[in-house]
Amino acid sequence: MHSAMSTNKTEIVDVALDDFSEGYFFLSPENRHKILLSLAKEYDLNRTQVRELMKQHLDLQLPSDKADDSGDHEEEGSLSAFYRIERNLRQALKPMYEVLFERLNTHPGGLKFLSDMRADILHILEDVNIASLRALDSHLKEKLITWLSPANLELHNITWDDPASLLEKIVAYEAVHPISNLIDLKRRLGIGRRCFGYFHPAISGEPLIFIEVALMKDVAATIQEVLWDYPPISEHEASCAIFYSISSTQPGLSGVNLGKFLIKRVVDVVKKDMPNVSVFATLSPIPGYRQWLLSKLASSEMSGSAFKENLLRLEEEKALMDASGGSDMGSSGTEVMWNLLTSKHHEWTNSPNLVSALRTPMMRLCGRYLLKEKKRGKALDSVANFHLQNGAMIGRLNWMADRSQKGLAQSGGIMVNYIYRLDNIEDTAQSYLNEGHIEASSDFRSYIEDELEKE
Amino acid sequence: MHSAMSTNKTEIVDVALDDFSEGYFFLSPENRHKILLSLAKEYDLNRTQVRELMKQHLDLQLPSDKADDSGDHEEEGSLSAFYRIERNLRQALKPMYEVLFERLNTHPGGLKFLSDMRADILHILEDVNIASLRALDSHLKEKLITWLSPANLELHNITWDDPASLLEKIVAYEAVHPISNLIDLKRRLGIGRRCFGYFHPAISGEPLIFIEVALMKDVAATIQEVLWDYPPISEHEASCAIFYSISSTQPGLSGVNLGKFLIKRVVDVVKKDMPNVSVFATLSPIPGYRQWLLSKLASSEMSGSAFKENLLRLEEEKALMDASGGSDMGSSGTEVMWNLLTSKHHEWTNSPNLVSALRTPMMRLCGRYLLKEKKRGKALDSVANFHLQNGAMIGRLNWMADRSQKGLAQSGGIMVNYIYRLDNIEDTAQSYLNEGHIEASSDFRSYIEDELEKE
Repeated sequence: MHSAMSTNKTEIVDVALDDFSEGYFFLSPENRHKILLSLAKEYDLNRTQVRELMKQHLDLQLPSDKADDSGDHEEEGSLSAFYRIERNLRQALKPMYEVLFERLNTHPGGLKFLSDMRADILHILEDVNIASLRALDSHLKEKLITWLSPANLELHNITWDDPASLLEKIVAYEAVHPISNLIDLKRRLGIGRRCFGYFHPAISGEPLIFIEVALMKDVAATIQEVLWDYPPISEHEASCAIFYSISSTQPGLSGVNLGKFLIKRVVDVVKKDMPNVSVFATLSPIPGYRQWLLSKLASSEMSGSAFKENLLRLEEEKALMDASGGSDMGSSGTEVMWNLLTSKHHEWTNSPNLVSALRTPMMRLCGRYLLKEKKRGKALDSVANFHLQNGAMIGRLNWMADRSQKGLAQSGGIMVNYIYRLDNIEDTAQSYLNEGHIEASSDFRSYIEDELEKE
Repeated sequence: MHSAMSTNKTEIVDVALDDFSEGYFFLSPENRHKILLSLAKEYDLNRTQVRELMKQHLDLQLPSDKADDSGDHEEEGSLSAFYRIERNLRQALKPMYEVLFERLNTHPGGLKFLSDMRADILHILEDVNIASLRALDSHLKEKLITWLSPANLELHNITWDDPASLLEKIVAYEAVHPISNLIDLKRRLGIGRRCFGYFHPAISGEPLIFIEVALMKDVAATIQEVLWDYPPISEHEASCAIFYSISSTQPGLSGVNLGKFLIKRVVDVVKKDMPNVSVFATLSPIPGYRQWLLSKLASSEMSGSAFKENLLRLEEEKALMDASGGSDMGSSGTEVMWNLLTSKHHEWTNSPNLVSALRTPMMRLCGRYLLKEKKRGKALDSVANFHLQNGAMIGRLNWMADRSQKGLAQSGGIMVNYIYRLDNIEDTAQSYLNEGHIEASSDFRSYIEDELEKE
């Protein structure tokens, strides 16, 4: 590691970089931890030199503003002293490990290595908060953002004609709706479907992120109709492009928002290709809903009656008690709900009565979760936050939209459509980012009307 | 320009960037000058804020070195304050115009625009030295170096099958040996020839730089045999790859050394493709030689006899006087040489006697020029400096190697081979860059043996 940074001979550097990156892969997690810490601490910046330059700068007299035109020459002279020190200071403020990052970036396989290394750093930071390691991470992230700017990425329409080695990666990385077999994959690349990936020249054979699109007549209400619509409609009948899955493949690129640019590019490509398509929407999971709901139910049960929040309305409470048929499912609506939602195999989905009794409160509370629950001014739900910051609005909640084990475990099977309205994507994104405002369709607001009235 | 930097709405930015870059092209040189100056001065950094952060930093106590293991926790705490201020300071040290650069870079056509804008800046700086404009230039250059890192460039083997629009650019940009017609171009892309270009995805249809290669039996001694060897040898007989032309197409990328990486990549590709090729050399012009020689001749004539440098040896002096046949060409060897080299149509090249009399002193002094004449520790000749810093050594001088008007005007027709010896390119480059040492073949040194003895 040291020789990869300290010498200027490219040949030696190449060998050292190879040694370092190969050696790194063989290290145990503990030793990786150690080497990353020593990188963060021992190859930081030279603070003494930085402070020396600061003192020099502060010793200079700032030029007065009014000397604008007169004495232009003298001003130029004093400015060059500022420029010189500032240039040196910028240089001195670069931690030494940036040299390693930069060299790895131009080294074959280096960009991928850096992304893998950052995945390790993020993993360590989940457990312990070390200021120097956090600084290392933030420098590396900045560099990755620069190197992976959209100008350096290539959009590729992935089809059944692509190499099997690439398609295999798509199967492996699909994180939203797992691809079960080759027929499933072929369907996702067939008529009425598209798959676009963002590729970087230095990481060949696999996309950094990819998105799956279904061309449909209407905005899809269930993932079943997206994955298993057979036979598909002919493409010229399609008026909606449904983004039903977006997966990034590199955990080390967390926080490098490639998805936003990918969606923008894909919208442009589809619009150009198929002028009939006028609606761009997602069919998205709500990964944090059930967990949030369970914690609400638990605290509602536990808290003393004085502060007890009425999570369920009277008629919802009654319907749940009726549907549970006085069995041992619980002595209150919230208790019944808790027991149903925590049952191992989601048995409630087999009982039309229970499904019907759960529907109203589950949908209502899901609306509240998406629209009102925030963390540091951003939507609590990670997928909601992703699409809202990209400029989408919340469109429609869909009941029993994902009946898979994963869908039921995440959100009791509810899915949501986020809508990208092309004429005001940026306004929507800005009002979300700056004021935390979440835009939603009137359709959606009706679900939580009462919730809104209460406020 | 202001709105392109000040807002965060991408749509507005896009429009503003289009307006700015389109508007800029319609400006007169004077108005471009004005707008660049105002960019440099009014969108510089906020110096008051920078100094405020410096004071905060200097107020902090540097952690003592020995607190290494004990009190690790406390150290982490104090370090995070440093990291925070340093992060803010790095941000504050960025001039505002960097935002414009960054936005233009991801904007369609923006990279090309930035390169054109930098060409204007360099043009202004040739006439006047303005500290703020120089700082603007150095920031822009840094950015361009980052964005045009070899990892972002694509090597393309340009052939006769490429679009005419691309080949037309090659004809237009060829800066070393102008391409006279389509047959000439076809020859340079035909059997025994290669042309490689470096392309950037954001600047489509033209290379940033390209190199022309001839595959030959021996190291070429004249450009004529490179450009007009008909019929060519079959490629499997070739043992030498001769780089006979390298042209960069963007004046705004001056100082961004793409040539070095291009040569490295091309060597790798050719080596892989043709294992029989073992010698990699250039056939290069010596653009500054005649100008330097004329100034030496002039000062030798003008200076008083006491300090007079004996530019010519006695036998050279005599040969020149004999060949000039006592005509009115001058009363001394140096005067004859001056008159011959400044004759408008290089008439001396038609007289075997004159050619023969000029050869010895011209070659000897050319050796001295290449090996000894330096400016700030670097070779005075720009092409020499380029190849030496890339790790080549001086190989051989070639008399009457380029009989074109341009070749005669630059160097009296002399050309030089620089040799890239693959096993010590980096050592050679380092000893040149660090110690100013110029490596030369023994063949070459024999030309200037006496010159060396004198020292």
